[in-house]
Amino acid sequence: MKLDDFLADCRHRVDAALDALLPRPEGPAARVAEAMRYAVLGGGKRLRPALALAACEACGGAVEVVVDAAAALEMIHTYSLIHDDLPAMDDDDLRRGRPTVHRAFGEAEAVLAGDALHTLAFEVLATRPRGDEAARRRLEAVALVSRAAGTAGMVGGQMADLEAERRRVDADELIWIHRHKTGALIASSAELGAIHAGANAELRQTMSRYGQALGLAFQVADDVLDCTADATALGKTPGKDLRAGKATFPALYGVDEARRRARALADEAVGELAGAGIDSDPLRALALFAVERGA
Amino acid sequence: MKLDDFLADCRHRVDAALDALLPRPEGPAARVAEAMRYAVLGGGKRLRPALALAACEACGGAVEVVVDAAAALEMIHTYSLIHDDLPAMDDDDLRRGRPTVHRAFGEAEAVLAGDALHTLAFEVLATRPRGDEAARRRLEAVALVSRAAGTAGMVGGQMADLEAERRRVDADELIWIHRHKTGALIASSAELGAIHAGANAELRQTMSRYGQALGLAFQVADDVLDCTADATALGKTPGKDLRAGKATFPALYGVDEARRRARALADEAVGELAGAGIDSDPLRALALFAVERGA
Repeated sequence: MKLDDFLADCRHRVDAALDALLPRPEGPAARVAEAMRYAVLGGGKRLRPALALAACEACGGAVEVVVDAAAALEMIHTYSLIHDDLPAMDDDDLRRGRPTVHRAFGEAEAVLAGDALHTLAFEVLATRPRGDEAARRRLEAVALVSRAAGTAGMVGGQMADLEAERRRVDADELIWIHRHKTGALIASSAELGAIHAGANAELRQTMSRYGQALGLAFQVADDVLDCTADATALGKTPGKDLRAGKATFPALYGVDEARRRARALADEAVGELAGAGIDSDPLRALALFAVERGA
Repeated sequence: MKLDDFLADCRHRVDAALDALLPRPEGPAARVAEAMRYAVLGGGKRLRPALALAACEACGGAVEVVVDAAAALEMIHTYSLIHDDLPAMDDDDLRRGRPTVHRAFGEAEAVLAGDALHTLAFEVLATRPRGDEAARRRLEAVALVSRAAGTAGMVGGQMADLEAERRRVDADELIWIHRHKTGALIASSAELGAIHAGANAELRQTMSRYGQALGLAFQVADDVLDCTADATALGKTPGKDLRAGKATFPALYGVDEARRRARALADEAVGELAGAGIDSDPLRALALFAVERGA
């Protein structure tokens, strides 16, 4: 199966799950449901859900089992984008080629829509897939994703990223930021697939390491895209980090060396699979996709 | 045991748990940990944790079992206050007698500190109390609190409350708002105690109904306080709802009738206990406290 077909299939399954799981825009709180749907269903690569589905399959599970939990990852990711785009944070007007949530719905609505997606993600992780035999895995899923999304992961990285705007950071600090800000949730996406496949601790660790390398590769490539692509292709405002004087991999290493490092990290991710004897075309292809996606 | 002693004991236990569970302010993300600690450890009645502890004991559980989960309720409550106080929401400068988090730390930090508390709450609910025998209860706790905090509960109520500023609402709508905005999490606090006591479904329902009546009583009394107390006693800016033209129970019914209704709801809460044959001084006292606390 080619990666494009695999990604299209993932997107189809995950978008259907998201549509079913998101609240209907009705009743006194209709507006927050509208904003949630606008943010979540307005496009996006669905990289994190795809990683969860591919990892689940690679560990011997059926992809159906992990689709709802994978949708929860996209909710966490989307909540973080909504809050990150707020005027008090990155103050972005454009996301996935459309006005950001606070531009389209208002700032209070954006805060609440992010909060609601955040909560809903944990409700979904705690309740899907249904069935007594999956209860232990659901509990592990909540613990895993909450660790990845909190101060020891995503939010910690966002805080450090904000601080980094106020002073010069070196390569080690930049890597710390990205391993937390985006890497932790991406790593947990692969591990989530392993959990719902019923994988043992060793296999879970392999998937986590694969996801960590892929996550950093993705971010280095994202930095390169941010300084080489235009807004239409990117779907968000390009060059903002550079103008804000924020450290980026291309700024530290130059564009060519940054590209080389992204590729080396993708190779490292694939190496983790090979080392554990895992043969998965989608997981290999996703590692390449992380660094080769066009702007 | 007198209620003051009970509340002091709860506060002592819950504050110790919060201190142990909150991240240390160290490393690149130290500032978000500082803001979290400032917000959570800066006072507060700890009503929701106290309800969880009292309900657990009333259902035959040991209070130690539910202390960490009760601390998670306070994290959810505090995250909602931090985000509610933001300039884009209620734009409040004062909370629990001190500058709000965005005043003390900055707006971006307030968004992130709220987000981090939100995530940490679910991590704690998924992992405490430890032990295999509590795994099923932890999963039920995550599902319960996520439903209470999301669009079907707290965030839905906040959204409807925002909308209510833009038009006149009647008593039914105001009750809907408060049953969701504050009532849902308060009801889930009592039910959480029942869950970790190993209570059956019927007893859980009783605790939930007790909490629902108490939650609404608390909010009606809060509205009365908001229009009768001063800032020093209240610890937050008083009279804001009235000036914003927002519907409140005193505005709809007058102060005396609002007070009478609050008391009737507290009686209803106590009646739920009596109807189920539950004899608990702390739960009875908490229902009275909800409506009789001085400003």
